[in-house]
Amino acid sequence: MKKPNVLNNIRIVLSHTSHPGNIGAAARAMKTMGLERLYLVNPKAFPDPVADARAAGAADVLENARVCATLDEALAGTVLAVAVTARRRDLSHEMLSAHQAASRMLEFAVQEGEVALLFGTEMSGLSNAELDKCQLLATIPANPEFTSLNLASAVQILAYELRMALLNRASLGVTETPAAKAMEAASFEDVERFYQHLERTMIDTGFLDPACPGRLMQRLRRLFARARPEKEEVSILRGILTSVEKFTNK
Amino acid sequence: MKKPNVLNNIRIVLSHTSHPGNIGAAARAMKTMGLERLYLVNPKAFPDPVADARAAGAADVLENARVCATLDEALAGTVLAVAVTARRRDLSHEMLSAHQAASRMLEFAVQEGEVALLFGTEMSGLSNAELDKCQLLATIPANPEFTSLNLASAVQILAYELRMALLNRASLGVTETPAAKAMEAASFEDVERFYQHLERTMIDTGFLDPACPGRLMQRLRRLFARARPEKEEVSILRGILTSVEKFTNK
Repeated sequence: MKKPNVLNNIRIVLSHTSHPGNIGAAARAMKTMGLERLYLVNPKAFPDPVADARAAGAADVLENARVCATLDEALAGTVLAVAVTARRRDLSHEMLSAHQAASRMLEFAVQEGEVALLFGTEMSGLSNAELDKCQLLATIPANPEFTSLNLASAVQILAYELRMALLNRASLGVTETPAAKAMEAASFEDVERFYQHLERTMIDTGFLDPACPGRLMQRLRRLFARARPEKEEVSILRGILTSVEKFTNK
Repeated sequence: MKKPNVLNNIRIVLSHTSHPGNIGAAARAMKTMGLERLYLVNPKAFPDPVADARAAGAADVLENARVCATLDEALAGTVLAVAVTARRRDLSHEMLSAHQAASRMLEFAVQEGEVALLFGTEMSGLSNAELDKCQLLATIPANPEFTSLNLASAVQILAYELRMALLNRASLGVTETPAAKAMEAASFEDVERFYQHLERTMIDTGFLDPACPGRLMQRLRRLFARARPEKEEVSILRGILTSVEKFTNK
């Protein structure tokens, strides 16, 4: 049985989008992060071959997209609507960063029900009337000298933050589940034998003067310690040293 | 006087990009997050009107983009190169999430010098030879059933995480004048010259058969990449190799 996906409680709503390419690119951006429910309020051109082309492997998201005549229709059934906006607005909406908004939305999606994330037009964003239908504003921190994010890029960032919020919640973050390491770590003894071997070889070649060793071995230990060599890598290094000995012991 | 921008120490390198539209969209994605330095390794078509159109207000990033014939040229002068990859690779590169990688890169950009973030082609990503020139892998957590992020979308997410890392750093009151670092990181060129020297020496001692090299150099590159050697350490390693040559050249 397939596990219910809490991201299915989140719909992406694009209002009055001008360019069908952006609709396709948004669908692709959504699917890469596991979001599937796309609502289009009065798109200028949809369906459209340009949207299909930009969607790449996310044709299913476009096929299942719901085209709505009004924003009310697109928000029907939701318990929270979050508006993405670049500008600070004059009214007293609560304003969150994309990161904070994603985590708030996910909580709602888990505990309360359906959530909408709303994006305005490419040129002018959301109207005040549209904002009035939302409970929260989300803003993407951007370069103050150039805030002009592409619509699909904005969808990509929010979708990414939603996925990250999901991973954090499930404690499945990359940090916490490192993939099985392919190789076996070298043991303390392996590494110590390598250091002894290295020291002997450096003495043989004349690079290290045993009467005046300085901090050379210490430096090299630090270097290799940072690399945390694998067993097989230590074997390779010792093989190199052995190949040198054939010359120094002549 | 304009405050120096630490993001100027970070270059975005796009290798063998097929579609000029993606180059333009990447430039726009960069600029929205305050990144300006774009390097293009053998782009299929550049400059190109399609790139200009997709860049929107980021024409300056395209104008200042540096077109390079080789990846080595694009990485020259960097102290850290991070490769963005969707797949888990077989060998033991250190693998970080986009979020972790951004914060690591920012630390290097503040304390050490220039950092490169490398993206491969739209269809096949980065080659193993390209990965071998990098010290870290960054991956964007994505829907396991559809990991196909658009190239510019991947740039957008990493650029966003870099900006977030910068903002977090600023909000933590971390100043941009770190405690004096003891050692200077080795440059890309330093490390490449060391690998060449190591290879030559191993051929001289008979450890490496140039007719049948296998994956030996690749293994050694990954080992040292994890250690990220300092300039002085590279000098020590090359000194050891030189001391061996006195014997093999006899």
